[in-house]
Amino acid sequence: MHLVVIGGVAAGLSAASRARRLDPKLEITVVEKSRHISWAACGLPYFLEGRVAKLDQLQIYSRDFFESQRKIRIRTEAEVVAVSYPRRQLRLRTGEIIPFDKLIFATGAFRACHIPGAFRIDTWEDAEQLKSHLERQRPRQAAIVGSSYIGLEAAEMLRAHGLKVTLYEARKDVLGREDPWLTGRVVPHLQRCRIEFRPETRVTDLVSPELTLLACGLQPNSNLAREAGVETGARGAICVNERMETNLADIYAAGDCAETLHLVTGRPDWIPLGTTANKMGRVAGTVAAGGREKFPGIVGTGILRVCGLCVAFTGLSEAMARSEGFLPVSVTVEAREKAVYFQGRPTSVQLTADRRTGRLLGACLVGEEAAAGRINVLAVALSQRMTVDQLAWLDLAYAPPYSTVWDPVLIAAQQLRKLL
Amino acid sequence: MHLVVIGGVAAGLSAASRARRLDPKLEITVVEKSRHISWAACGLPYFLEGRVAKLDQLQIYSRDFFESQRKIRIRTEAEVVAVSYPRRQLRLRTGEIIPFDKLIFATGAFRACHIPGAFRIDTWEDAEQLKSHLERQRPRQAAIVGSSYIGLEAAEMLRAHGLKVTLYEARKDVLGREDPWLTGRVVPHLQRCRIEFRPETRVTDLVSPELTLLACGLQPNSNLAREAGVETGARGAICVNERMETNLADIYAAGDCAETLHLVTGRPDWIPLGTTANKMGRVAGTVAAGGREKFPGIVGTGILRVCGLCVAFTGLSEAMARSEGFLPVSVTVEAREKAVYFQGRPTSVQLTADRRTGRLLGACLVGEEAAAGRINVLAVALSQRMTVDQLAWLDLAYAPPYSTVWDPVLIAAQQLRKLL
Repeated sequence: MHLVVIGGVAAGLSAASRARRLDPKLEITVVEKSRHISWAACGLPYFLEGRVAKLDQLQIYSRDFFESQRKIRIRTEAEVVAVSYPRRQLRLRTGEIIPFDKLIFATGAFRACHIPGAFRIDTWEDAEQLKSHLERQRPRQAAIVGSSYIGLEAAEMLRAHGLKVTLYEARKDVLGREDPWLTGRVVPHLQRCRIEFRPETRVTDLVSPELTLLACGLQPNSNLAREAGVETGARGAICVNERMETNLADIYAAGDCAETLHLVTGRPDWIPLGTTANKMGRVAGTVAAGGREKFPGIVGTGILRVCGLCVAFTGLSEAMARSEGFLPVSVTVEAREKAVYFQGRPTSVQLTADRRTGRLLGACLVGEEAAAGRINVLAVALSQRMTVDQLAWLDLAYAPPYSTVWDPVLIAAQQLRKLL
Repeated sequence: MHLVVIGGVAAGLSAASRARRLDPKLEITVVEKSRHISWAACGLPYFLEGRVAKLDQLQIYSRDFFESQRKIRIRTEAEVVAVSYPRRQLRLRTGEIIPFDKLIFATGAFRACHIPGAFRIDTWEDAEQLKSHLERQRPRQAAIVGSSYIGLEAAEMLRAHGLKVTLYEARKDVLGREDPWLTGRVVPHLQRCRIEFRPETRVTDLVSPELTLLACGLQPNSNLAREAGVETGARGAICVNERMETNLADIYAAGDCAETLHLVTGRPDWIPLGTTANKMGRVAGTVAAGGREKFPGIVGTGILRVCGLCVAFTGLSEAMARSEGFLPVSVTVEAREKAVYFQGRPTSVQLTADRRTGRLLGACLVGEEAAAGRINVLAVALSQRMTVDQLAWLDLAYAPPYSTVWDPVLIAAQQLRKLL
């Protein structure tokens, strides 16, 4: 029995490792088109910053570890160009044929935007090229296209290198959240950090001849699967059930190439993120190896640091909720995150609920590091379909170094109750 | 209609304020035996430390604010010595009679232990006396009796003043959690901070002639209520329902003097804490003023800083779970709280679940500040009666400055699943 995994980063190697743990006899091959496997892509902005001195520090496990310890065959620089489901085989660009009994697509995502000469920061090689450009050419200005996670993170890092940074976004709002409140907190902060934000600006050419960075147009890398007869959904990502099974028997998908169930809308969605990829990979590997496992889905939680500010969200924004047929009502609160004498600073909370049911639909926090813990409280609430009434009385931890008697989350929930 | 509230701190003033908001015509009187109302008792250790320079900084609202803005009559230095339910009146120590239509007991807790000459740090006056003793006598050693929140916090503060500190505890474990794992993390940390811990040591006399501080024997202050015919529970606290109603019509109780429903055991419990007191007060005030409100209960969440270490817990320890008839099984995990290149340090997680149902029963975290957010995730999980299987796949926020791809909570839950 031969399990082949296409993709050697988060989802792919989680899947391969889990399959090995379940079935010591399974033959497992991971096929990766680049030269690098098992590395933490989320660390690339911090390599750009210099906080991560060498890319090697982002390596999680070595190739040798997988091969000798886990008995997983690793094929790098091996690009799959076709998959034949009837023949249960795949073909590499070199012409080599690899047969499989079970196949996991962990092919990730790609940027559909193209500007000749522009940099990217999606792969190990991208990061090396960009860093080398920064060090050798010492550009004085940069244009970033797309206010995605990576766009905002890269803006901070390039600014830290002293560059004049302009961030272009095709839409009105940042981070694809359709959330003017969130945009209204992030953009002034960018301005304070002297990063210029240009909304509703579509970029098709090199904006800064010195350095243009593409951080837009992310798409699921699902063509190979689609050509093999695997179903894809509205956003082009591979359709899977809770067990990461596709419409074809013995074919699975996990990570940024696949859809996942959004527990707030109850419908499949495509929100590519490393942490979700790891979870989906674990489930795909377990099921492919004959085990039982289910991935219940996501609630749309995200977090990033923007010039020292913690920006976190979960669930739906008001606009997203409206287009899902909810009747959203929101409240925003500015509250101190902990006691004044512990230098407690203001944290901003936005909660959105459904007027019909009183159910929490989404939340957004902007503030200090503790916003991470608070957004997680709201993520759990969403996954449990909690109402704002339930939220408002939660037994959250209180001591002056960590919170206020009424936690900012509870203050916001108590406010929102009044509107329901 | 006259509402009288006995007690002018957290629960009492929350109740009075909420009642006023609901009913602008209600006559409201707050009767407080000390000279001070509306102050943050949780800040006393930080006054001792010096971080809070003056006790006035712990004042939340002034007496004048309540009287002129909220039209609430405030009676300080007014100790109630008897309550007659049939006559709907109470008597002060001065002999003065105050009639009421509705009455809220917010009488708090007191220390049942007595060592003549020992200090306390429970009231404004206690704190003034102790601080003045520290400044004038400059003691070189201190004995603290009881490893409660206040005991542990005071130990840190006295140590910070350069005193040799010994902490005595009658039981084996700290914080009344019957949790050797927690004790095993806290005690070595105390030792690193050069605070000596003496477990299973009952103290009846002054241990340090220079400074002995009582932080043990907390009891609900419910005698007055009991003498008036109000029912009390196993721990001596006033029995209330979700609406903070006692067994007597028009008589309510809230805060440290009252029981509350423990959502994990499903039974009333007595866990006196400021944040719970505020919530109960808000409900008591609403209901006393004719409104509708329910306090669903607590899950036993607590947090404190011990010499810079964040110690947080929620739900039941294994021993507590066993005596509640559960079949507890626990796992402990040491995981990095965020990326290495963000100085992510190890955080320790203990999760306890019920082997029969797979339900989470309790959790404990010891680590950095972010432990606060993580314990809250587990508190929500407890309040929702989540299973460890559900916990293990939560969509928690991930970015290198704030977490790891698998959050420490998820790592622990994934481990615990294997034992169920």
